[in-house]
Amino acid sequence: MSDHRFLRALARQPVDRTPVWIMRQAGRYLPEYRATRARAGSFVNLCKTPELACEVTLQPIARYPLDAAILFSDILTIPDAMGLGLSVEEGAGPRLAKPMRTHADIAALTAPDPEMDLRYVMDAVRLIRRELHDKVPLIGFAGSPWTLACYMIEGQGSASFARAKALALDDPATMHKLLDVVARSVTAYLAAQAAAGAQALMVFDTWGGLLAPDMFGEFSLHYLARIAQSLQSHNAAKSTPLILFSKGANAHLEALADTGCAALGLDWTIALGEARARVGGRVALQGNLDPAVLQATPAVIAAEVEAALADFGAHPGHVFNLGHGVTPDVDPERVKVMVDAVHAAGRRIRGG
Amino acid sequence: MSDHRFLRALARQPVDRTPVWIMRQAGRYLPEYRATRARAGSFVNLCKTPELACEVTLQPIARYPLDAAILFSDILTIPDAMGLGLSVEEGAGPRLAKPMRTHADIAALTAPDPEMDLRYVMDAVRLIRRELHDKVPLIGFAGSPWTLACYMIEGQGSASFARAKALALDDPATMHKLLDVVARSVTAYLAAQAAAGAQALMVFDTWGGLLAPDMFGEFSLHYLARIAQSLQSHNAAKSTPLILFSKGANAHLEALADTGCAALGLDWTIALGEARARVGGRVALQGNLDPAVLQATPAVIAAEVEAALADFGAHPGHVFNLGHGVTPDVDPERVKVMVDAVHAAGRRIRGG
Repeated sequence: MSDHRFLRALARQPVDRTPVWIMRQAGRYLPEYRATRARAGSFVNLCKTPELACEVTLQPIARYPLDAAILFSDILTIPDAMGLGLSVEEGAGPRLAKPMRTHADIAALTAPDPEMDLRYVMDAVRLIRRELHDKVPLIGFAGSPWTLACYMIEGQGSASFARAKALALDDPATMHKLLDVVARSVTAYLAAQAAAGAQALMVFDTWGGLLAPDMFGEFSLHYLARIAQSLQSHNAAKSTPLILFSKGANAHLEALADTGCAALGLDWTIALGEARARVGGRVALQGNLDPAVLQATPAVIAAEVEAALADFGAHPGHVFNLGHGVTPDVDPERVKVMVDAVHAAGRRIRGG
Repeated sequence: MSDHRFLRALARQPVDRTPVWIMRQAGRYLPEYRATRARAGSFVNLCKTPELACEVTLQPIARYPLDAAILFSDILTIPDAMGLGLSVEEGAGPRLAKPMRTHADIAALTAPDPEMDLRYVMDAVRLIRRELHDKVPLIGFAGSPWTLACYMIEGQGSASFARAKALALDDPATMHKLLDVVARSVTAYLAAQAAAGAQALMVFDTWGGLLAPDMFGEFSLHYLARIAQSLQSHNAAKSTPLILFSKGANAHLEALADTGCAALGLDWTIALGEARARVGGRVALQGNLDPAVLQATPAVIAAEVEAALADFGAHPGHVFNLGHGVTPDVDPERVKVMVDAVHAAGRRIRGG
């Protein structure tokens, strides 16, 4: 299995060409996804029905020559399993029915048992692994403690997550209590996904970049490092590469690389060559084309892919991806142009 | 007039205490603003009526011991004067009725004459200067060419401004044509504000940070530098300090400091001490408390202000501000706590 070029690249071993997958590759830009989503009735039901989650997970793998599948799920499955009540309205984003508003709310939280309380995720992982027939590796994932705490406090998305920040500032002990139980939950959840068959793990710290540097260190990075360390003591997870993606936090790349993770996801606001020069000796890098490039013409998409791969160069340890999730308005044909360009330029650069 | 501590700090001269003003200080968090806004009927009418724009500009100066006033206006006055038709619905953000959709749209654009087509802004500047009685200096401002181009192409705000980016990628010549006429318009507009009495000028590059590094250089930074250089040849503007604020673009601080501006605005995702170490020898720095801190308790607000001022230290060239505009949900009493803390800590640090 470690012969898969995605896993080899995460281990910074030589590959025949740069592997490629796409954040949110099973998503609304695909008509076959929209059809399954319509059958599921709701987004949450799609996540919670292993057969349907498996179906959409495999759709982009059938359509494009991708090098990894990623579990179709949502980062808010953990708060949902903690009893906060997840719903997702099309266009309006996720909502938690019972946000954390008091010390008592937070004190009452306990870490879910993944095989009990998130069984549908583990079943989906097992089913997807079976259906993938080892064609490509499967990535499991979770939200970062800080990002989950943001949603758990606000109850929904926010431009600034000011309420979460105010709790961190006014009552850091309570915020750490929340982050602690979430970090333990994330660790157990990721370890269980690895035990169920996930061959790589990714943590999405979507809102880490909204924090001032000191707060990033205390309330986000600290828990990312703890998760990376804790996974080392789990039998199933210790040999499973961990990818950390802290969006908008390129100022902290060195600190993120020191957490013990295998790889860092990069958004598109840093050049790949610069990121490699800063941390490429320690971790693999994943990214980082601006998703907006997929709105450009095919020739421009191919040229941007080539420039990105050339900027990273023939060094080991690059997984191509977008710098954030593919957006619903993208033409699937443009995605094919991008993937094909990664194949072509990746072979040229790596001699495969 | 250069004895004002705000202007002295921009010139990196010694001051008795750190000067302070607040981005969007005349805004919805103030009940007196909401009252004037209601009388104006619409946001655009508030901008376009010099007496009302003057009234709201002076409201925060009356309420708090601030060291600068900033013209009440909108960055989209220039596209409006170009004929694109600005409207601003409460809560929905600005809209341009005639976004640029074709080469012909862009080719037909001409730079507005500030004293003709934006006379209401110049009249407001003159009126505010008269009413301020030199109590504090007045800041004039404009949007950056890239940020204005984003709105002119999309017609409204966007999470990614993918349409604007796609034009830049697919047809850079047309994008440069647009940016060129906007940059000439911004330069003339800022020079006219200086001639009308503005004592400092600021350019808001709100969406520069959404660009990949190469694109930032080509489509945003290049035009910021051109504006900084061009203002040097305007009699009224050449001795008027220019502040550039490129949100989310801290990776480019050195390049921004090399544009010829007097100062850089900083968002809150960089420590003041680090920013000073990187560029403080060349430019003054303005910022950068996270606006979310104003949701915290008074003691925490004061502590965060003190930490920020201590991090910058007693070096010349600091203007205290938030790292982005004050939000409408802030309690005006918390703003007073922040301003008072800047006065107290600023005197302690600078010996005033």
